[in-house]
Amino acid sequence: MAIGAKTGKTGKGTRKRAGAFRDTYFVIMAGGKGERFWPLSTDRIPKPFVSLMGRKTLIELTVDRARKIVPLTHIFVVLVREHLAIAKKCLPGLPRSNFIIQPFDRDTAPCVGLAAMVLHQLNHDAVMVVLPSDHYLPDEAGFTGLIKETVKAARRGEHLVTIGITPGRPETGYGYIKAGKKISLPPEADCYEVARYVEKPNLATARRYVRQGGYYWNAGIFVWRADALLEGLRLHMPALHDGLEKLGKVRSLRQKAGADAVFAGFEKVSIDYGLMEKAKNVLMMPAAFVWEDVGTWTSLLRVLCADESGNVVRGKNLVLDTTGCVIISDKTPVATLGVSGLVIVAGKNGILVCDASKAQEVRQIARIISKRGDR
Amino acid sequence: MAIGAKTGKTGKGTRKRAGAFRDTYFVIMAGGKGERFWPLSTDRIPKPFVSLMGRKTLIELTVDRARKIVPLTHIFVVLVREHLAIAKKCLPGLPRSNFIIQPFDRDTAPCVGLAAMVLHQLNHDAVMVVLPSDHYLPDEAGFTGLIKETVKAARRGEHLVTIGITPGRPETGYGYIKAGKKISLPPEADCYEVARYVEKPNLATARRYVRQGGYYWNAGIFVWRADALLEGLRLHMPALHDGLEKLGKVRSLRQKAGADAVFAGFEKVSIDYGLMEKAKNVLMMPAAFVWEDVGTWTSLLRVLCADESGNVVRGKNLVLDTTGCVIISDKTPVATLGVSGLVIVAGKNGILVCDASKAQEVRQIARIISKRGDR
Repeated sequence: MAIGAKTGKTGKGTRKRAGAFRDTYFVIMAGGKGERFWPLSTDRIPKPFVSLMGRKTLIELTVDRARKIVPLTHIFVVLVREHLAIAKKCLPGLPRSNFIIQPFDRDTAPCVGLAAMVLHQLNHDAVMVVLPSDHYLPDEAGFTGLIKETVKAARRGEHLVTIGITPGRPETGYGYIKAGKKISLPPEADCYEVARYVEKPNLATARRYVRQGGYYWNAGIFVWRADALLEGLRLHMPALHDGLEKLGKVRSLRQKAGADAVFAGFEKVSIDYGLMEKAKNVLMMPAAFVWEDVGTWTSLLRVLCADESGNVVRGKNLVLDTTGCVIISDKTPVATLGVSGLVIVAGKNGILVCDASKAQEVRQIARIISKRGDR
Repeated sequence: MAIGAKTGKTGKGTRKRAGAFRDTYFVIMAGGKGERFWPLSTDRIPKPFVSLMGRKTLIELTVDRARKIVPLTHIFVVLVREHLAIAKKCLPGLPRSNFIIQPFDRDTAPCVGLAAMVLHQLNHDAVMVVLPSDHYLPDEAGFTGLIKETVKAARRGEHLVTIGITPGRPETGYGYIKAGKKISLPPEADCYEVARYVEKPNLATARRYVRQGGYYWNAGIFVWRADALLEGLRLHMPALHDGLEKLGKVRSLRQKAGADAVFAGFEKVSIDYGLMEKAKNVLMMPAAFVWEDVGTWTSLLRVLCADESGNVVRGKNLVLDTTGCVIISDKTPVATLGVSGLVIVAGKNGILVCDASKAQEVRQIARIISKRGDR
């Protein structure tokens, strides 16, 4: 039986808002270490709290996106306790109770489950829009429009809705979703069952996907009723569901130290792997808007405006005879001469000089530096 | 007539020292902008005052070399006024009056001429050992031994003595001296007339020089009596000599503002070009010790100990999958990954990332940054 059926509390202060999205809540996942964005991100200040695109931090940009649809009171941020202080600093307007604290990072399944539990207790009709905090989504209107459609679809409670991005190129760095049977749902949005999930493909396979059509990038954006998600967990991740039920019985869920023990027992597993790939009621809604995962320094070459030499430069830097480089230094000026295909990032914790093709391996550096104790 | 014949002052306090080198003085040229060592050297802190090899600045290392032969009171530093403060800070033990101040930098001929004037007024028998402040000379005993020989040869007053380094490789970055007729001088040192000076050769020519023998690197180290140098200037650089005579009549030469006008009139010319290539009484003494000009960041690859991957690393840096790089950062740690043949230097004024083959062009960067006003 779903946790939702057991917890009898009625959401308070959430029903006052009229309109189509009065039961909609955004859940922003602010987890992850962001090791691949060393030196700007560190153990203490992970990626969501770093300004990678412009002045605002990634989490601020994500909250801005959510505010197009719901008020701040309906925006929740899930994070680990160590990052609460920096998160509050980045988001001074967000109510304290909208930070959902995980004792440990256990990947996205426990994170999403915990948020579902909290929201279900708040509002039995809660619909959750789950957003990672490291996406590039420049088409605000397109994003807002589609999210509204997904909420309408999810509100009915039958489906777990996910977004599939129409691929703009044969990208090998993203997972794909193969669309299955087309489904007609009121209000007539374009919807598909999921045939299967595909891990990051090689280039030949990715090219075939793009040529063939019917394959979409897995954006990791999910929309569902909180009770539908909890029911999905009950069916496919019963251990996690049991743990969440225990947590649900704790009166003050968010601050209780007892939660630590329960959380410690959770398996570290993503919601994609743990639930989405197994559930039969997943619905994919294709998106035509531009989306990129901001996963490594080189992803900035795609999402920021490169100059005529193909460089992305931020800060008062001096760039001579330089091509295809990411150069970021907000304080000390960087001067480059005769180099190409490098990532150069200077922050107070360190200076990175790395071949662009090795951007994935920057996490190695972050780990070594973190162990060494200088950040 | 040489200035020496007109100025009638007797050196005071310099005759007390007994021994073979009581009339010997070292003149360290601390000029130059060191633009090629940006970001560690800047307009305000040029190369001689920067620590490029170990903890000591280049000028400290040069003074240490001189002290093997003469006391501090016999060591003079020629510099421009703007650098007096930093020079005094680097060399707290050097008497204030041993800093010879040039109103402007006019290359080495006026610099050396001014020093000769000062020393000749101090001691009519003064022998000057002129040292640039950016040399790598690890063989202390070899250096000291040869300098003593040159002083003995120069003391007789007939010759302007220069040192030629036996080339260890066909270097295209140095000028060469072709040895002429062998001369026998007491105390039987190996001495040659100079057949000719050769500008930096191309690789084929440099290889021929090394194969053929009789060619030496021009180290820019000179030893002569002050009066012999002034006589040389009178013959070959009469305008400079006239100016120095005027300066010689000023009572307090080193502080007089009137010197500015005279100095402003001096042509910017090197002592090699202005005098050495023309004088008939030049004597070259070959040196077998290791010598390198520390002219660019990449010269550090030769003079500092490279690790097994061919990197020269200074500071608490993290070097992964990196070869043939110079990596210097004393404060903020630099992490490199998958790069080769780069010069990476971080200082408080800026961060340089430059292809090793472009090290000569770093001056461009220094000039632009200097104009821009951020140092």
